[in-house]
Formats: sequence, C-alpha cells, structure tokens
Amino acid sequence: MEIVIRPIGIIHSPFTDPHQTPIQPTRSDAVGLVEVYPEFAPGLQDIDGLSHLILLYVFHRSSGYSLRVTPFLDDQPRGLFSTRYPSRPNPIGLSIVRLLSRRENILEIEGVDVLDGTPLLDIKPYVPDFDIRQDVQTGWYATRSVRD
Amino acid sequence: MEIVIRPIGIIHSPFTDPHQTPIQPTRSDAVGLVEVYPEFAPGLQDIDGLSHLILLYVFHRSSGYSLRVTPFLDDQPRGLFSTRYPSRPNPIGLSIVRLLSRRENILEIEGVDVLDGTPLLDIKPYVPDFDIRQDVQTGWYATRSVRD
Repeated sequence: MEIVIRPIGIIHSPFTDPHQTPIQPTRSDAVGLVEVYPEFAPGLQDIDGLSHLILLYVFHRSSGYSLRVTPFLDDQPRGLFSTRYPSRPNPIGLSIVRLLSRRENILEIEGVDVLDGTPLLDIKPYVPDFDIRQDVQTGWYATRSVRD
Repeated sequence: MEIVIRPIGIIHSPFTDPHQTPIQPTRSDAVGLVEVYPEFAPGLQDIDGLSHLILLYVFHRSSGYSLRVTPFLDDQPRGLFSTRYPSRPNPIGLSIVRLLSRRENILEIEGVDVLDGTPLLDIKPYVPDFDIRQDVQTGWYATRSVRD
C-alpha cells in the first residue's frame, strides 16, 4: 500500500540550519509564517478563534532512517519510535504552535521549530479535551531534563 | 511535490462501522492492538517506559474532501482546518493513546478511536513538555460541550 501526499502549503521560519533549529516548539519563541496555498484557503474559516494549532509537515531535509538513533537530548541509542527524531520511515513531523494572527491564507505563528521551506501537510485544531493527557510517564525522557 | 508514504503497521480495533467509532480517544476506553510490521520492530526499543503514544495513521475509509464541513460536534459548516474531520487533502489522523503493554512487535493500547485495519504511519512519544499547552482557546469548540 502506498499513499501519495501533497503539501497544502509551506512553513516560513527563521531557521535555515538544522543545527540551529530548536528541537521543539516549547523551546522556541520564534515567529514564522504558514503560507497555505490559495486553493486551500477556504478551509481556514473559523481558525481565527483557535489559540493553538497542530501542524503536520514533512521533514524534507531528512533522508533515510535508522531504527536505533541517539536523540539530541540523550547520549545513548534508543528505539526510533520512542524518540521524536526527524529521520523516520514516514518523515512526518508534528508541532503545536500558537496562532498569532491570520491574513487571508497566511498564518502568523509563534513557537516555530521547523526549517524554513518546510512543506505543510495538514493543520488541525489543538483541543485540550482531545490532546492533553495526565499522569504521563515519559520513559527515557524522564532521565533527561527536557527543559535544559 | 509528491511524497510517497507506506504504512509501518496496522491498527486493530473493535470498530468496523464509522458511525459507531468514538470521535476522539478521550471518549474511548476501548482496547486495541497496534501491529508494527516485524521489519520495524527494532524501532520499538525503549517504548515500554512510555505511558502515552502519538499515533499517526491514514483515514483509509475517507475519500475526497470539502474545505467546509459540518463537524460531528456541530450543526453548522466550519473551515476544514479548524476541525478534526477525517476527510482532508492529506487524510492523516492523529490520536494519543495509552500504552498498556508490548509483546515484541505488538502494542496493546487503550483509548482507541480508529477503525479496524487502519494503516499506521508513525509512532511518537507523547511528552508533556512538548505536547501540553496552557491557556488554550478553542474557538467554535468552546461553544460545544466536547465532553458530551
């Protein structure tokens, strides 16, 4: 089974160097722009009322993958699916960002952690009742200070 | 630009009828199995320490899309990207589930809200520091009781 996906837009960010890009939006207050291609703009109706969006996008600078990787936050190899490492069998990334404003098909967002020119696949509303879980155990992450 | 994605596994759930499937995992205590294809099983190392996983998958029963839809929770049309509606330009779904146990390449999960046979695209760790946001405004959702 193969599925063909096509970007619905592009994410503009201040980051052009993977080594200088924040590893997660909570570590970034960088502002960026989500340019939704005009043919999809009608789908942005009602989005202005949302404070946070889930962006799905392509890790377009990654190629290939290993099933064991040493994450940015760690110093020993971990199973790929217990990490957010960008090189994956399906290199789809996920970030939660704050929506600052919209001008037609352009969204201004805060908390950008992706490279400039990242292809956008989807935008979903971030809804606490769906997306917030309590009593979470984070495995190897718990041994690392993810706020450092 | 086109990107070809291939499932890394399959999600087994009790739900075979879209109309009887919970619309979000927080409304489901259903138990299901994530079968990761054996060639990807080494990527599951270290996953046992995680209590919650983000699953990305294909809405394989959806076809086509409209940019304005009437969500399950609402009675008037909304912009598609302000909803979690399954028919999307890139029909990729996102669910957060609880990991109950693992036996080799099979994960037992709780909070399943997908149809049986759903193609799995990716598994990511759910990490509160990355994935939990405060002071969230939910736009039209706020006018609907999403707990109903």
